[in-house]
Formats: sequence, structure tokens, C-alpha cells
Amino acid sequence: MASVQVFGSPASTEVARVLTCLFEKEVEFQLIRTDTYKGKNRRPDYLKLQPSGESLTYEDGKSTLVDSRAICLHIADNYAEQGNKDLLGRGRLERASIEQWLRTESQIFDPPSSTLVFYLAFAPLQGIERDEEEVQKSKKELEKVLDIYDKRLNEMSFLAGDKFTIADLAHLPNTHRLMTMVPECAAMFEERPNVMKWWETISGRPKWTRVVDLQKEAPAVA
Amino acid sequence: MASVQVFGSPASTEVARVLTCLFEKEVEFQLIRTDTYKGKNRRPDYLKLQPSGESLTYEDGKSTLVDSRAICLHIADNYAEQGNKDLLGRGRLERASIEQWLRTESQIFDPPSSTLVFYLAFAPLQGIERDEEEVQKSKKELEKVLDIYDKRLNEMSFLAGDKFTIADLAHLPNTHRLMTMVPECAAMFEERPNVMKWWETISGRPKWTRVVDLQKEAPAVA
Repeated sequence: MASVQVFGSPASTEVARVLTCLFEKEVEFQLIRTDTYKGKNRRPDYLKLQPSGESLTYEDGKSTLVDSRAICLHIADNYAEQGNKDLLGRGRLERASIEQWLRTESQIFDPPSSTLVFYLAFAPLQGIERDEEEVQKSKKELEKVLDIYDKRLNEMSFLAGDKFTIADLAHLPNTHRLMTMVPECAAMFEERPNVMKWWETISGRPKWTRVVDLQKEAPAVA
Repeated sequence: MASVQVFGSPASTEVARVLTCLFEKEVEFQLIRTDTYKGKNRRPDYLKLQPSGESLTYEDGKSTLVDSRAICLHIADNYAEQGNKDLLGRGRLERASIEQWLRTESQIFDPPSSTLVFYLAFAPLQGIERDEEEVQKSKKELEKVLDIYDKRLNEMSFLAGDKFTIADLAHLPNTHRLMTMVPECAAMFEERPNVMKWWETISGRPKWTRVVDLQKEAPAVA
């Protein structure tokens, strides 16, 4: 039996982040999910959740963790010798840079992108009215972040250097939702050539496309 | 919280039968599944199971059941007043005929079709050698069953009369595997016009295609 257990739905951006990391590190694990199917209500349950507020629990006998980025760091540390060995870099300096860009993702990319995913991808399906002020504010924030990224990615292929790391990985779930469900946000990425080239590279990774396949299921659509 | 809980994978023919019945009856339920993802092993776990030997548990507070047909009967009885009310017929006589055809499915259709699904759909993916004698024997048996069905379906649209019932429903999972994964068996259905018309009708039901969508996920592919 796998000693690593993940409780949650691949539809959650938080869970998707952890699954990608586990696939990259070639860790054996169990995914335990509970989907609720309503009789007549045809709306997916997961749409009722804030993208960033979905439940996630990671257990491996030693640790129980609930924050997706903390979990990714733990997995990369705990399984240092297997799978993708570049996820956390190959030395103290590389690691410092990766952790810094992971904090950047969490602090300045995640808030606006999660808000936009919620209001522009999920809320319309639920009939929730969008908060126009929030949307406009988040769009401006995201544009600024992408400008920083585009400059950075002009100098190197990935955010923390010339290798794909956890810092890039953390961007996959929200960016995927925006690129595939929100044309007006996809345009923001497409307008920035270095960002776009980076996105095409990281979103084509087989470990990630496997997670996309898992998300394609109808989770809790009744 | 849904009081009905189903433990198992939609990939299992047994579980698929129960899910179809729950969708038809518009019953709210929770599906609890555990998928194991191996590090380097790319083989789906479910392929290691005999199609008919997969685990399934149904719980609704009052009952814990493990046989898919018994579960379907229980659901249709327990939720008689909701969803599809024809599944078990509208009277004692209709019900007797439906139960008889359900037994026919279980006793003479299921054994050869399960064997053929195992040896011709799943075994090749696992590198398990086919038992040629078993395969030939099962093919002959299935041909005989389909001859009986073709005659019956010449007289009426569905096995137990002019309505889709549990007796037809029970045939969906194995027939779907044969039709989509085993051309030589699909041909057996296609050669019999009444069987084929029946299959096209029952396999196009939205409640069933929803289960097919759930099966399309990569369950436990690592």
C-alpha cells in the first residue's frame, strides 16, 4: 500500500499542484476522493468552492499537511533522490532562488489569478454575479505580475533559472484555468511572448497533462 | 450529506451498473474511490482485477450490499417514487418478467461476456496470455445468447417489454467494453439487427453516457 495519501479532488487547484509534484517525483500515492452526485442538480459540486478554498489533506505517516506549496516542498525534500531532481534545485543557492519565486507565485500571482478564475471561469457557471471592481483590480495586478515575468523570462527559460522547478509548477493550475476558460485573461499571457513561450513549455509537460486528464472527468456532476 | 455511499471505481463493471441505476433513479449519493498511482509503473491498477471481481460496496444506513444486481433491485425498490419509474416495471407481472431477464443476464450473458472482456480487452494490456479454449467457448456461448436476444428483440423493443428496465441496464457495462475494445465481439452484436438496434438505444441513454464519461478518466494510471 502506498504510504502517501492525498485527500481531495483533482479539480481543485491546490490538489492539482500536489498531484503534479507527486507525478514529477514519481512517488507512489493514493488519491482518495469523495464526489457527491445530486439527484437533479446538474451543477458540479466543486464549482461551489472558491478555487483556493478547496479542501486538501496530505498524509505520509510522518506529516499531515494542508497547504499545497508546503506539501510540494515537503515532497521534493522527502523524495530528493527520485524522479525530477531539479524541482528544488541542486544546491543552496538554486534552492533559495526557487523558494523566492515560489513565494512570488503565492503572494503576487495567486491572489489575482485565483480571483479571476473564480469570477470569470466558475462564477458564470453558478450564476454568481461577478464583482466588477474585484475583477478589474485583479486584472491590473495580473498584468503587472506578467510584465515582471515577461522580463524575467526574457533572461532565462524558467522563473528560477534554466530548469523547470516547483516555482514554475505552482503556476500551472490557475494559469490552465485562465488559458482554457477565460479568453480575456488568456490574451494577457499571449501578448507577452516570453511568458507565452514559458507557458507552452511548462503546460506541455506529460506529468501536468496527466493532471489535466484527471481534471477532465466530470467531478460530481449529477 | 448524501446518505447513500458507493465505494469503488467507475472502471469496474459492477460499480458502473450501480452508478447507472443511481443516475436513472436520480438518487443523491457519494462515490468514494481510492486510486493508487505508482511511481514508474504505468499500468492502470484496475486492469489487474478480473472485471467481475472488482470491489464494490453500497451503504445507505439500512443496508450494506456488495452484489451489483441486488443493489440495483434495492435502489429501484427503495426509491420507487423518483426518477425512472419503469426500471422495475409497474406491476407484479412486469416485475416478474424484468427479474427473470435480470437473472438471464446474470446467468447466461455475464459469464461469457466477462470472460471475453477479461481476455480480449484487459489481458492484452497486461501482457497476460489469453486462454484460447476459454475464449472460443465463451464466444460460442455469447453467440447463442445473442441469438436468443435477437429473437426476443424482434418482438419487443427491450428485453422485458416496451420499456428500458434494470434487465437492459445490467447489460451496459460489459457490452460497452466489448463494443469499444473488442472488434471481433462487436461484430457479433452488429450482425444481429435487433440486438444492434437495442444496443444503440440503451447505450445512448444520457444516464449511461455519464457513467462512460466517468470511466474515461485514467483511473490509477501512473
